[in-house]
Amino acid sequence: MPHTPAVEIITIGDELLYGQVVDTNSAWMGQELGKIGLRIRQISSVSDQAAEIVRALDEARGRAQVVLMTGGLGPTKDDLTKHVLAQYFNSELALYEPSLRDVEAIFARFNRPMLEVNRQQAYLPAACTPLRNTVGTAPGMWFDGQDGVVFVSMPGVPFEMKHLMTTHVLPKLKEQFQVPPIEHAVLQTVGQGESFLAQQIADWENQLPPNMKLAYLPSFGAVRLRLTATDDGQPDLRGRLEAQLPAVRALIGPYLYAEGEVTLEAALGQLLKERGLTIGTAESCTGGTIAQRLTSVAGSSGYFLGSVVAYSNQVKVNQLGVSPDTLEQFGAVSEQTVREMAEGLRRQLDVDVAIATSGIAGPGGGTDEKPVGTFWLAYADRHQTVARKVSMNRGRELNISYISTVALDMVRRHLPAAE
Amino acid sequence: MPHTPAVEIITIGDELLYGQVVDTNSAWMGQELGKIGLRIRQISSVSDQAAEIVRALDEARGRAQVVLMTGGLGPTKDDLTKHVLAQYFNSELALYEPSLRDVEAIFARFNRPMLEVNRQQAYLPAACTPLRNTVGTAPGMWFDGQDGVVFVSMPGVPFEMKHLMTTHVLPKLKEQFQVPPIEHAVLQTVGQGESFLAQQIADWENQLPPNMKLAYLPSFGAVRLRLTATDDGQPDLRGRLEAQLPAVRALIGPYLYAEGEVTLEAALGQLLKERGLTIGTAESCTGGTIAQRLTSVAGSSGYFLGSVVAYSNQVKVNQLGVSPDTLEQFGAVSEQTVREMAEGLRRQLDVDVAIATSGIAGPGGGTDEKPVGTFWLAYADRHQTVARKVSMNRGRELNISYISTVALDMVRRHLPAAE
Repeated sequence: MPHTPAVEIITIGDELLYGQVVDTNSAWMGQELGKIGLRIRQISSVSDQAAEIVRALDEARGRAQVVLMTGGLGPTKDDLTKHVLAQYFNSELALYEPSLRDVEAIFARFNRPMLEVNRQQAYLPAACTPLRNTVGTAPGMWFDGQDGVVFVSMPGVPFEMKHLMTTHVLPKLKEQFQVPPIEHAVLQTVGQGESFLAQQIADWENQLPPNMKLAYLPSFGAVRLRLTATDDGQPDLRGRLEAQLPAVRALIGPYLYAEGEVTLEAALGQLLKERGLTIGTAESCTGGTIAQRLTSVAGSSGYFLGSVVAYSNQVKVNQLGVSPDTLEQFGAVSEQTVREMAEGLRRQLDVDVAIATSGIAGPGGGTDEKPVGTFWLAYADRHQTVARKVSMNRGRELNISYISTVALDMVRRHLPAAE
Repeated sequence: MPHTPAVEIITIGDELLYGQVVDTNSAWMGQELGKIGLRIRQISSVSDQAAEIVRALDEARGRAQVVLMTGGLGPTKDDLTKHVLAQYFNSELALYEPSLRDVEAIFARFNRPMLEVNRQQAYLPAACTPLRNTVGTAPGMWFDGQDGVVFVSMPGVPFEMKHLMTTHVLPKLKEQFQVPPIEHAVLQTVGQGESFLAQQIADWENQLPPNMKLAYLPSFGAVRLRLTATDDGQPDLRGRLEAQLPAVRALIGPYLYAEGEVTLEAALGQLLKERGLTIGTAESCTGGTIAQRLTSVAGSSGYFLGSVVAYSNQVKVNQLGVSPDTLEQFGAVSEQTVREMAEGLRRQLDVDVAIATSGIAGPGGGTDEKPVGTFWLAYADRHQTVARKVSMNRGRELNISYISTVALDMVRRHLPAAE
């Protein structure tokens, strides 16, 4: 088995250590590096103090052949990474003209005067290969270390880091390192907990060959399964990975909503598009979250027509045609109300299918009869209306997120073949 | 200056290294640990392989007095943390009855049969102090290491980790460690880039005493400033920190929307509540994101009445009363349309203030005249309607997020004193 080059990611900044910012960069980088078959050994977040950055670099170079850094390249006083790297590689800062022109172009585009601190961003350690950044003011830096270890520094702004990774870093890594094959398959499931899923597929999992490993990636209401096959010296790794899939697909059955890195809302969008159906949402407790998720998908205007977020009873009556008697007799959080919301939305917006939610997301608003965490959902199409009650109380944010997942899954399961 | 105990956080799981899951746990833990004055030395994510976990533990104990771990405690085969810790502390697994009862209670509550793998979760290394988990099936473990280093293992499910941190870990850490004072102040700004903000407050920043440090935490459309004061042996650290604030507040002026850990939507909600005003949104390109953000705030039903997500022209006409002539003559992405959307929403839902958006979020849908990244926003109240054009193209997701921030800021700036 050939040796897989190991990568370490170092994200720099006190804001990461103290949680003012969630590190989403390393997750994205890990995904992209994994796709080209590199092995991620460790991700570390350290303080933006010179001594801590140097310590992290020293440790990482002992464990990995590639060290990728993000952060600390901004124009302000607390951004130290470039100066630390200059010293680490014993190299003076020098003006890199192409980056100066990039910085000038950025300011010209936004029609703002350029500051001296921004001009300073085009000064880079002479020892590095500059990586031009045309979408921000901090260029990246590529260092070929003396012991064969590659060090790359990128800005912490996710948009700029992704630009540099895609344009410069990933292509250069592929060129410089030979990597053994690695294959992944991802199965997306929804509607069943991790333990039950595991039990259902246990026999299949136990018969997997030693070079294949299954990981469970649960999120609230959904579980992703990732099957990874590593090189065993035999040919056709991809084919052998895929040969394992039919059996597990059959075991998962209707809980499987997609394969690959596809969100539930994208998978549902695909179904709607294929079947030529339009959709709208009538949301109370989810407050627009289902609409937001549906419209996060590029091209969703092809099937998503619109929504009514009906937080107040007045909006439920006036915009959705819910009967005031229903609200009076059964309350806003009831099967009757949520059915009328779904049917009303479908009629008012003239969509093929509608989904409606009403519930008590918390922390306030609960009663003895209807405690926080009581939710009603209704699905309506031209043939039927279906309602469902869900109890779930794990805090406002997770409740809303979970109910929006249940809602999308409910549409997926009931969607007619075509209208 | 007394010695501040250092903490390291180790998050365990291949899913973190390969970005299938974003590590939000360490950010939350860092925030909470920082609040009680502990210093975070490093956050590391490592593979769920025994050798890698042991290596990370060995390294962390050399740098910190507290090592907090999350992950790898699930019921499935790829969850190894407990077994690694049993070996690391040379300790047999033994049934811990109270945790077995907790696991049984969880399954009873969800009315599901308990599996043998779940029963196994109540077996813990005899050397640990078990930390009972009443919201999930994996108990936490607290180990007092021989060299005075504390090791704590918690499940990776954020909801369960937070429960264990709040109930057990933070109180025990406060009891066991004496920490020197540390003080933070957070200023939330919106509507101005990092470089300009930095220039505006440069003189103030330069006069700060050596024990005070300013960090810039930019996110798309907003910059958080965090001023941190560390112990210098002098009394009244909080008072001296706060004495620095009036000057910087004056320099930031109208871009300052709140102080402390407050979101823009929460700050706006507070203003609406104080002034007795109601709000609604009419969203095309933002697809419900503004509604979702407004309703993410607990108690938002006190001022948020509802929204119309008007993705199709038909919904703009029927639900918001936009004139078909306007759409025909100026198009959906135009000042005229967005003004009619805001005014129509205000009228239809009878709200005090309305915000409307229409634009081309991309990647498709652009034209020469109106390229991807062209956005119109309108604010309407009983006295005025104000429209604004914004150009921004950093990909669909960021475009939508940025425009929703601009929209919330637009409401904040125009909100009347009261109706």
